[in-house]
Amino acid sequence: MKLLEERIRQDGKIRDGGVLKVDSFLNHQMDVSLFQEIGREFLRLFGDCEVTKILTIEASGIGIACVTAQFFHCPVIFAKKNKTRNIAGDVYTSKVESFTHGKVYDIIVSKDFLSPHDRVLLIDDFLANGSALQGLISLVRDAGAYLVGAGICVEKAFQPGGEMIRNMGVRVESLARIKSMSVEGGVEFC
Amino acid sequence: MKLLEERIRQDGKIRDGGVLKVDSFLNHQMDVSLFQEIGREFLRLFGDCEVTKILTIEASGIGIACVTAQFFHCPVIFAKKNKTRNIAGDVYTSKVESFTHGKVYDIIVSKDFLSPHDRVLLIDDFLANGSALQGLISLVRDAGAYLVGAGICVEKAFQPGGEMIRNMGVRVESLARIKSMSVEGGVEFC
Repeated sequence: MKLLEERIRQDGKIRDGGVLKVDSFLNHQMDVSLFQEIGREFLRLFGDCEVTKILTIEASGIGIACVTAQFFHCPVIFAKKNKTRNIAGDVYTSKVESFTHGKVYDIIVSKDFLSPHDRVLLIDDFLANGSALQGLISLVRDAGAYLVGAGICVEKAFQPGGEMIRNMGVRVESLARIKSMSVEGGVEFC
Repeated sequence: MKLLEERIRQDGKIRDGGVLKVDSFLNHQMDVSLFQEIGREFLRLFGDCEVTKILTIEASGIGIACVTAQFFHCPVIFAKKNKTRNIAGDVYTSKVESFTHGKVYDIIVSKDFLSPHDRVLLIDDFLANGSALQGLISLVRDAGAYLVGAGICVEKAFQPGGEMIRNMGVRVESLARIKSMSVEGGVEFC
């Protein structure tokens, strides 16, 4: 998706250690007009898949998922990172390792909202090591729902997550795939 | 807002201890068509306030804030609950007490995204004790930005937050104000 690649080139900031900061438009401050174009593109890619639910993970996936869901006319569910008092009853649960935060945490979705009748599209802002996506896939499979695929905004294709998830037989569509990046050389897309 | 009140009556679940579960449409599974009506109502209330930024707090405010921002044609910023490696540099910070999770945490917003030129609308799903909203107000004031007001989906008017925030001189517009609720008697709106 040219628009997203251009925006990353223009406003993304590369930091040491393979960190790409896109917090001015994607995951801290959020440009909802860009999200609308992202949602339209996900509709183009997955519009014939009879999606009944969009599943994402808190926090930065939620905005993109909600704007995208308007195009699919379906609800969004976000997997929660901590068990709170307000989610009682039965939940699907899975583990995710966060490289950003350097810890492992549980993600949960209430069993009330995913069933074998659902056709689920996963949406997230980033795909790098694939741990978050793998956790979401596990929730969908536990629910017996059909996994349509995953719509990702930015894939760091030089990290192993994308290949790992695709090798699981999951359709992954990334709107911007970064081949390499460096503070000196900037971003190169696939 | 009648539509939201009706939805709470229909799908909300009251639990002991003053807990209202609206996780089938508002803050776990999210009905984005309802969010569109919520956004339209916030535009009716705050549309003449020249809002330049919508500020919310992760996680459950983000979806409502993003759908609402489409009507205001402005970006959303969400305050993050934990300092991550990816937010470097200067941040505004404030403390929030979560009664749901039973702990106090820091919220932060990068100084890059709030300035004295901004006119900020706060958006959140719930107002009960007012701690989250107070934290967001503190961030706006630290930035020297103008606080337009707060748009809340569900206010528990029997808890002290709404009165406290209004007594600070902040305009608070709640789309559904709950006067009282009980497992036996259901929900009564103001």
